[in-house]
Amino acid sequence: MRLRGVLFSLASITMDLEDNIFMLAGPVKMHPRVLKAMSSPAINHRSAEFKAINAELRENLKYLFQTTTGQVALISGSGTAGLESVVSSLLHKKDRVLNLVNGKFSERFNDLCKVFAEPTPMNFEWGKAVYPEKVAAELEKGDYRAVTLCHNETSTGVTNPAKEIAALAKKHDCLFILDGITSVAGIEVKPDEWGADAVVMGSQKCIAAPAGLAGVMVSPRAYEELHEEQSCYLSLRAHIDALRDEDDTPWTPAIPLFLAFREALRILKEETIEGRIARTAKLAKASRAAVEAMGLQLFPDKQCASNTLTAIRYPAGFDDGKFRKELRESHRVVVAGGQGSVKGKIFRIGHMGICPISDLLAAYAAVEAAMIKFGHKFERGAAVRAIAKSY
Amino acid sequence: MRLRGVLFSLASITMDLEDNIFMLAGPVKMHPRVLKAMSSPAINHRSAEFKAINAELRENLKYLFQTTTGQVALISGSGTAGLESVVSSLLHKKDRVLNLVNGKFSERFNDLCKVFAEPTPMNFEWGKAVYPEKVAAELEKGDYRAVTLCHNETSTGVTNPAKEIAALAKKHDCLFILDGITSVAGIEVKPDEWGADAVVMGSQKCIAAPAGLAGVMVSPRAYEELHEEQSCYLSLRAHIDALRDEDDTPWTPAIPLFLAFREALRILKEETIEGRIARTAKLAKASRAAVEAMGLQLFPDKQCASNTLTAIRYPAGFDDGKFRKELRESHRVVVAGGQGSVKGKIFRIGHMGICPISDLLAAYAAVEAAMIKFGHKFERGAAVRAIAKSY
Repeated sequence: MRLRGVLFSLASITMDLEDNIFMLAGPVKMHPRVLKAMSSPAINHRSAEFKAINAELRENLKYLFQTTTGQVALISGSGTAGLESVVSSLLHKKDRVLNLVNGKFSERFNDLCKVFAEPTPMNFEWGKAVYPEKVAAELEKGDYRAVTLCHNETSTGVTNPAKEIAALAKKHDCLFILDGITSVAGIEVKPDEWGADAVVMGSQKCIAAPAGLAGVMVSPRAYEELHEEQSCYLSLRAHIDALRDEDDTPWTPAIPLFLAFREALRILKEETIEGRIARTAKLAKASRAAVEAMGLQLFPDKQCASNTLTAIRYPAGFDDGKFRKELRESHRVVVAGGQGSVKGKIFRIGHMGICPISDLLAAYAAVEAAMIKFGHKFERGAAVRAIAKSY
Repeated sequence: MRLRGVLFSLASITMDLEDNIFMLAGPVKMHPRVLKAMSSPAINHRSAEFKAINAELRENLKYLFQTTTGQVALISGSGTAGLESVVSSLLHKKDRVLNLVNGKFSERFNDLCKVFAEPTPMNFEWGKAVYPEKVAAELEKGDYRAVTLCHNETSTGVTNPAKEIAALAKKHDCLFILDGITSVAGIEVKPDEWGADAVVMGSQKCIAAPAGLAGVMVSPRAYEELHEEQSCYLSLRAHIDALRDEDDTPWTPAIPLFLAFREALRILKEETIEGRIARTAKLAKASRAAVEAMGLQLFPDKQCASNTLTAIRYPAGFDDGKFRKELRESHRVVVAGGQGSVKGKIFRIGHMGICPISDLLAAYAAVEAAMIKFGHKFERGAAVRAIAKSY
């Protein structure tokens, strides 16, 4: 088979950290235009030229979040910094907040809330979606000011029912805070329509910019309730106001990342957000078909399986470290392992951002070879054929 | 004069944001090796390769801070984020902290402390150094847990007596927190020797990396007193422990900036920190000689004038906006204006990081031309001649 031949011949070349098929659940492969924008010489972040860059970012952030009524910010920090900017600026120390937890990132979200508010975690089985009926019952009982949800749990490959949870939060007059770090621009997110009060996205996920920035949007209601009692660097009001009123940032921004993010947003607009989401869905369908064709099991329930990454259970007896080392060293394919309680039990293939079909084919060709090498049995070529058929 | 001829001929080329003599007080010009490192394709930040990068960063951060006993961290955020990581992690809400204020950045440091502790500002005239005797008297009276100082006030071009203030803080058993954002690697900073409990540096200043990272060091005493009551993303303990124990970061780092910072630290080590500091001092001496040769006045007192930038008073009647526009548009020279209460009254020329003598000469050749154009009188060529003589 020609494809695998090419892959195998690569293995003899000296290993290069940057020369691989890069299929993490973020950071993800970046477009050459984004890399080029990032490597610009130093520019003055307090200049008319940079104000024009900020103004473009602001308008394109609104497009990214599909919002016309919301306010937006771009924060120099990771997705966690984006979540903290929302939680520390919107909630008060004594506020009760319901954290819906069904994976590592929603656990972390709960930990973050402990510093700035009074959170109550509501736990759901990892690999299953959050169950709206259970949430509804808790909201009937409790006196919550806010509800948090991780839209796309990359630790388990589950997409949670954000629209339904938003409606429940709204019914109970709670603020709805959505961790959309790995969903915005990969899975439909409609804050204005759903009534989400805050949404956070991460730069190194579905828009395929470098790691290090978080985009944030808040509803008009949430904007009115922002305060600065618990934050300074991550004050969401400071970020929003500077960007809206002055085309500026409150602190020195991570300048090269702003330039790269701008280029990534331009690329997204060229494809359109609907086009990006549809492409991501198509890759996900093909990826799940490949899993099935090899006789492997998805980790999440199929009906809530994420479109931005595929989480796959290892066959019994497989060693995660050895398997991913084989992918990496013999095939130059980089995929993610499991995290937290599913560490060693699953591996995860990201297919968000600008992931091309060629990378998905190459990744599964390598997975096929490694699966067979370590003793899992199926008809060779089944996965890549399934991808081609699905796509 | 050949040099000015070259500069003038440039003015006819189409304006390019990146093609200029870049003399801000940070961000500063970056080495091509740093730009190249920054534009690397996406890599896995949870891999053995990235752990090796983190391990190298940790050891070179210790070199950068000239510490053998301290703990270090590299935070994905601006210098302000670095200061917040120290203040929020080291101080408690009820702690009294004495903020020494003599410029915009020390004012900002005071504002930051208001969120996380009980600060008392002690104000000194802008352009003068902090006065140790006055600080000593206040420390005799007050019950302070900490003292903060901005080592190098870039807003006024003043270097404060950090060693003396550290000794006073130590005498009164106060934690000494030093904003070394624009001094570390440009002016001598010796935390172990002076007894500084926390020092923060900024990536886009004396090490000439891109904006977006803050390096932090803390003393053994300060490390023991770190807590997580007021911070999550900026928890200094989380950053230090992850880097020291796991060669890792607590959250997703700004990956391209880490790669660029690593390269900038390598370049610094090649020059040696002593060499960089000596070069910065030599440029500063030449810069001050140029100011004097044009019959202009430094803004700060000469005995506390900073080596990393030169702050210069405008002659009476000069318009800051027009003057810097002339520098930028006719000569492609980018310098900084004044901030806060000295906005419009001064301009500032940065000469930290990898600033070459050629850039200093070109900057002052342009300043000469613009000064003469707007009516200030002096012997043409005096500034560049003074630089050549001094250097």
